[in-house]
Amino acid sequence: MTPAAPIGVFDSGIGGLTVVAGLRRVLPREAILYLGDTARVPYGTKSSEVVRRYAHTCARFLLTEGAKMLVVACNTASAHALEFLRASFAVPVVGVIEPGAAMAARATRNNRIGVIGTEGTITSGSYQRALARLAPEATVIAKSCPLFVPLAEEGMVDHPATRLIATEYLAPFAAHEVDTVVLGCTHYPLLSPVLQQILGNSVELVDSASAVAIVVRDTLEANSLSAPRRAAEDRFFATDVSQRVLRVGRAFLGAELAAVNLVDL
Amino acid sequence: MTPAAPIGVFDSGIGGLTVVAGLRRVLPREAILYLGDTARVPYGTKSSEVVRRYAHTCARFLLTEGAKMLVVACNTASAHALEFLRASFAVPVVGVIEPGAAMAARATRNNRIGVIGTEGTITSGSYQRALARLAPEATVIAKSCPLFVPLAEEGMVDHPATRLIATEYLAPFAAHEVDTVVLGCTHYPLLSPVLQQILGNSVELVDSASAVAIVVRDTLEANSLSAPRRAAEDRFFATDVSQRVLRVGRAFLGAELAAVNLVDL
Repeated sequence: MTPAAPIGVFDSGIGGLTVVAGLRRVLPREAILYLGDTARVPYGTKSSEVVRRYAHTCARFLLTEGAKMLVVACNTASAHALEFLRASFAVPVVGVIEPGAAMAARATRNNRIGVIGTEGTITSGSYQRALARLAPEATVIAKSCPLFVPLAEEGMVDHPATRLIATEYLAPFAAHEVDTVVLGCTHYPLLSPVLQQILGNSVELVDSASAVAIVVRDTLEANSLSAPRRAAEDRFFATDVSQRVLRVGRAFLGAELAAVNLVDL
Repeated sequence: MTPAAPIGVFDSGIGGLTVVAGLRRVLPREAILYLGDTARVPYGTKSSEVVRRYAHTCARFLLTEGAKMLVVACNTASAHALEFLRASFAVPVVGVIEPGAAMAARATRNNRIGVIGTEGTITSGSYQRALARLAPEATVIAKSCPLFVPLAEEGMVDHPATRLIATEYLAPFAAHEVDTVVLGCTHYPLLSPVLQQILGNSVELVDSASAVAIVVRDTLEANSLSAPRRAAEDRFFATDVSQRVLRVGRAFLGAELAAVNLVDL
């Protein structure tokens, strides 16, 4: 592993491109190798065993391609597979849950924290456990929001139906007067405006994606792996490439998506 | 292949259980072998190549388990992989598109037919081609409805948000005065009441699932493969088994779901 090697990032699909956008902002010298497991997306409704198996295949691919460290940009995979990947491979592995939980623990003023995510992420209890450790005084209300991913992917980020569904999902947070809500899924930042409107401006939304870039920077420094200069372009891989992937990918990356290479895992 | 062997049915997930329910009604003596590719669901957003590869794996599994014929209970797989499967295997293969299109061609009185399905099914043009052959006089309006699958799986079959979204999706059908709409996805029968309400009672909804059972019966008879008596219980397999699969599966089958066996493809 050399400092000039790229950072490997994988996600169940293209939502992890919001994490790539965060890494580009914080670490402009680092090259990124991205893999979206678009043929097997979504992970959020799959069992723990299957998610672990898929995450292992993704990680192995990125290491074969020369990644110096791994970022698990998928909340569901972070919830189910992080310890398993750390035990399986010798490189540093950063997930999205711990950074998001730590940011929420710092942000809350009244110690009432909400977490939203896929069914898999929420029922795994991973955010709840991380917050119990990082903010032991806090009351944590967790709520799975299964329709947010398809709504975000359909671009219905400001649709009356989305507002209706979000109002139902978020009702427990008003009742418990949370002042901080963790967006525990990489798709959710696209829905931030409507979520903020429903929750009110006094509630802080924590975007795990942006918290992750800071932890990655610290991890690279601690392991003497920071790139001295830009050594290569970012490269994008996916297990399935459709017009939809390219279209939605641009929205998540917030930039034009370079050539996406098809890979069969 | 003996008449006593079971009928193999596969789907990208559990929606195909509505087809199993139809087969049970029409062919009570036939034993069914069902495979739901729940680890890789949904197919509707994947590319044609990936869908063909997955469909081939599913078909091979069912034949290895002794199926005497194959029913492709997934509209997307029928659209992309039917001819490929017929070329690959020696048993009869029935899809859901041809039977649904034939039923719609018989049902329409004003020769204006609507078709709804996943993005993959609609953009494949399979229903449009089948209808051009079976109802050459008819005007066909096709519309993909990507949010119907997640809404049906969340059980939001009578929710105001579902009504809002459905009203938008179905608007072209009123404008074109269609009198028949094909439900081109095995999930959609669960939404029938709200769809019928929006379209009005003068529009006939065609459920491909129930059309398929008749074609399967005819295919078995033509090949001398009809079971003389019930030789075995139905068996259910899935590539991922979660509480969600069992919960949603019951809704689709309309009956208690027997033990579901996990299979790794």
